[in-house]
Amino acid sequence: MSAQVKFTLDETQIPKYWYNIAADLPTPPAVLHPATQQPVGPSDLEPLFPMELILQEVSTEREIEIPEPVRDIFRLWRPSPLIRARRLEQALDTPAKIYFKYEGVSPAGSHKPNSAIPQAWFNKQAGIKKLTTETGAGQWGSSLAFAGSLFGIDVTVYQVRCSYDQKPYRRALMETYGAKCISSPSTQTESGRAALAANPDSPGSLGIAISEAVEIAVKNPDVKYALGSVLNHVLLHQTIIGQEAIKQFELTGDDPDVIIACAGGGSNFAGLAFPFLGLTLRGGRRRRVIAVEPAACPTLTRGKYAYDYGDTAHLTPLVKMHTLGSTFVPPGFHAGGLRYHGMSGQVSQAYELGLIEARAYQQLACFEAGVQFARAEGIVPAPESTHAVRCAIDEALRCKAEGKAETICFNLSGHGHFDMGAYINYFSGKLVDQDYDAAELASSLAELPQVAAE
Amino acid sequence: MSAQVKFTLDETQIPKYWYNIAADLPTPPAVLHPATQQPVGPSDLEPLFPMELILQEVSTEREIEIPEPVRDIFRLWRPSPLIRARRLEQALDTPAKIYFKYEGVSPAGSHKPNSAIPQAWFNKQAGIKKLTTETGAGQWGSSLAFAGSLFGIDVTVYQVRCSYDQKPYRRALMETYGAKCISSPSTQTESGRAALAANPDSPGSLGIAISEAVEIAVKNPDVKYALGSVLNHVLLHQTIIGQEAIKQFELTGDDPDVIIACAGGGSNFAGLAFPFLGLTLRGGRRRRVIAVEPAACPTLTRGKYAYDYGDTAHLTPLVKMHTLGSTFVPPGFHAGGLRYHGMSGQVSQAYELGLIEARAYQQLACFEAGVQFARAEGIVPAPESTHAVRCAIDEALRCKAEGKAETICFNLSGHGHFDMGAYINYFSGKLVDQDYDAAELASSLAELPQVAAE
Repeated sequence: MSAQVKFTLDETQIPKYWYNIAADLPTPPAVLHPATQQPVGPSDLEPLFPMELILQEVSTEREIEIPEPVRDIFRLWRPSPLIRARRLEQALDTPAKIYFKYEGVSPAGSHKPNSAIPQAWFNKQAGIKKLTTETGAGQWGSSLAFAGSLFGIDVTVYQVRCSYDQKPYRRALMETYGAKCISSPSTQTESGRAALAANPDSPGSLGIAISEAVEIAVKNPDVKYALGSVLNHVLLHQTIIGQEAIKQFELTGDDPDVIIACAGGGSNFAGLAFPFLGLTLRGGRRRRVIAVEPAACPTLTRGKYAYDYGDTAHLTPLVKMHTLGSTFVPPGFHAGGLRYHGMSGQVSQAYELGLIEARAYQQLACFEAGVQFARAEGIVPAPESTHAVRCAIDEALRCKAEGKAETICFNLSGHGHFDMGAYINYFSGKLVDQDYDAAELASSLAELPQVAAE
Repeated sequence: MSAQVKFTLDETQIPKYWYNIAADLPTPPAVLHPATQQPVGPSDLEPLFPMELILQEVSTEREIEIPEPVRDIFRLWRPSPLIRARRLEQALDTPAKIYFKYEGVSPAGSHKPNSAIPQAWFNKQAGIKKLTTETGAGQWGSSLAFAGSLFGIDVTVYQVRCSYDQKPYRRALMETYGAKCISSPSTQTESGRAALAANPDSPGSLGIAISEAVEIAVKNPDVKYALGSVLNHVLLHQTIIGQEAIKQFELTGDDPDVIIACAGGGSNFAGLAFPFLGLTLRGGRRRRVIAVEPAACPTLTRGKYAYDYGDTAHLTPLVKMHTLGSTFVPPGFHAGGLRYHGMSGQVSQAYELGLIEARAYQQLACFEAGVQFARAEGIVPAPESTHAVRCAIDEALRCKAEGKAETICFNLSGHGHFDMGAYINYFSGKLVDQDYDAAELASSLAELPQVAAE
């Protein structure tokens, strides 16, 4: 038990470039304007985002430079550690080696600041002083609040109602950073009022909260919008995770055979996986790469690959992606960060190309894995991250059954310090497995927009 | 803003020895048996602690070896980073350099595992399978629960009632690690029942909770007791903090002029300060060393240096220390870890010798500092740690007023993720400054035991 546990890099080794997988993938299906169904150009996105981020969104350059002031803030916690889970291996009695990249070391507690910081920076450079966004679990909202506090930007967060109600401490964290937090659906926007009219008891959804935040930005020229996942530029920003992991694996002497991350919109998954996929796409060895999603919101495993809106009120462009339909409202289960009807276009494209696998788990099995991990390694995972832990444990048990000493690497995207209510429910037996409503899914998929380009 | 921020060491540089300040201090006043008032010998403590810890308690060896299995667990998060708070310096516009040693990177969120791990280890080596303890803020209880989960030891935690009620998530964390958590005063012990009889609405205190945990250990030969602060061996275990900081300051090129930590029982304070004091005591330069306590429980600044019991029910030995009297129950303010009537004998001795200063702050000023720190550096401090932050900011502002570029180092002993209820109360204006009851303090001090040895 005395061999090296943590594989750390010093702060000079924070990546200087983001890795853009668009350079190594086939040209993706065009993003379409929601009204005209014509391909959107950069100017169509200007009401929402500063031009630098729009250019990142459509870039096909392989490397995009990370501004020095952004890297300077990353120094507060990056490079994040790659940790060998020796005690978990021992508890499982597996010949597999299990590593995890731990993103919970960030001040906000997850990988989300990796994109919140550059998004706030590029907005500040464009003279923007106000940002709106949405948050599900609260990890993204906390991260943009943190970024806003560093750059003097006012941040308003529409927090999905069931999360807002379940997690007062998460809200308090955002307020400590100086952000304003609003329960969504709210009465402050047309989208929110429409959602409340349709269902006054709506638990909310990321789709609704996105509509509210986007609406505010569209209607107020001095306000821009920030999204914490799904979009190409967000996934791009997260690729520092995988780039660091590649360098850290050189220190371990191991090379991962299986790469695992949970996937809601796809950002922590892409962050770890894309740099490894890039190596494969440029002629390197092939590895298994697994996206893990909740069985109650099974975008990749049960969704359709089709053009759809990113939000409920259909304010966003149409993106070709794996989707359950923009009107789909998943049950109010505890991994709020995985309650999104769609999946990033790039992750969807990689799935269609057979570059990655997908797997869905019910939540009880995930919390069981989370508790086992906490008792072995000390860190209590966020409910989202327990999906990755579950899959890593199952892969390690498969290795045991098959007598294979494979190397497994998963992304521990965040800690669960603000999600202990879910653990309380788990221990008290109140937490149950939840299935999506099959009839609702069928009707939601039937309402997918008709797109001529398809 | 682009110079180095984090000063990290690799895991081979985790200290191999604890630093025992007893080697460099005059012989301290004897610890006395509560019944006989005769000096206690190692055998008197055997009902509570395994012999290895008792020997550490009374040792005068300067260096005590850290067992390799303990260091191996420390690898999960140690060495902890020394961080230059450049953004805070900038916000304060001070010529001072502010560094903090960040102990919140431990899985349990504070410095407490530094002692919980070795305590659990030495108990396990002695064949002990059950431990009891108390917890105020919850940081110590979480840490012993974490340590218990790694060594297969059953842990029962008596949590001070006001903390138990305020912090359900903290309880959930202990339960996630597999520990059992009981609100104190409880009906399970004579001490608890006596406290409830005296005051059914008692908010609890560390003194009462210690009595309960000690009573269980005394009455059950297969159960030992673990304390998270105050005792020499606990302070000893924490000295890895300061030892690492000394090495890290060599990397910075700076040398701290002022060293600051909050002090409840004294463990995080001693952990950072004693190794630096040791350098001074062995002929090195003199630095200012400041212990910061809450104005509502001002042990060093308003207490008496006298023999007193460590607990309310007078089950513990008599220790000469700064004390407010063992019957003193401080108001239920938010820094639960600082609500102890006494102060470690070694810290008290250092204070009497003029080696350290003490300062008391009201809580509103501390939370204000905590929020300022969070908005500059991202990390939300535990309420206890905000006392150190307040003092560091005040020292930096003094430097500004005096035009001095001093180097300040404080111990950020833990994060506040499980204490956001206190921040919610702060933002909503419900948090108020609280004074101790002067009449209660007078009566408590009047009840100090008469000790012939004095």
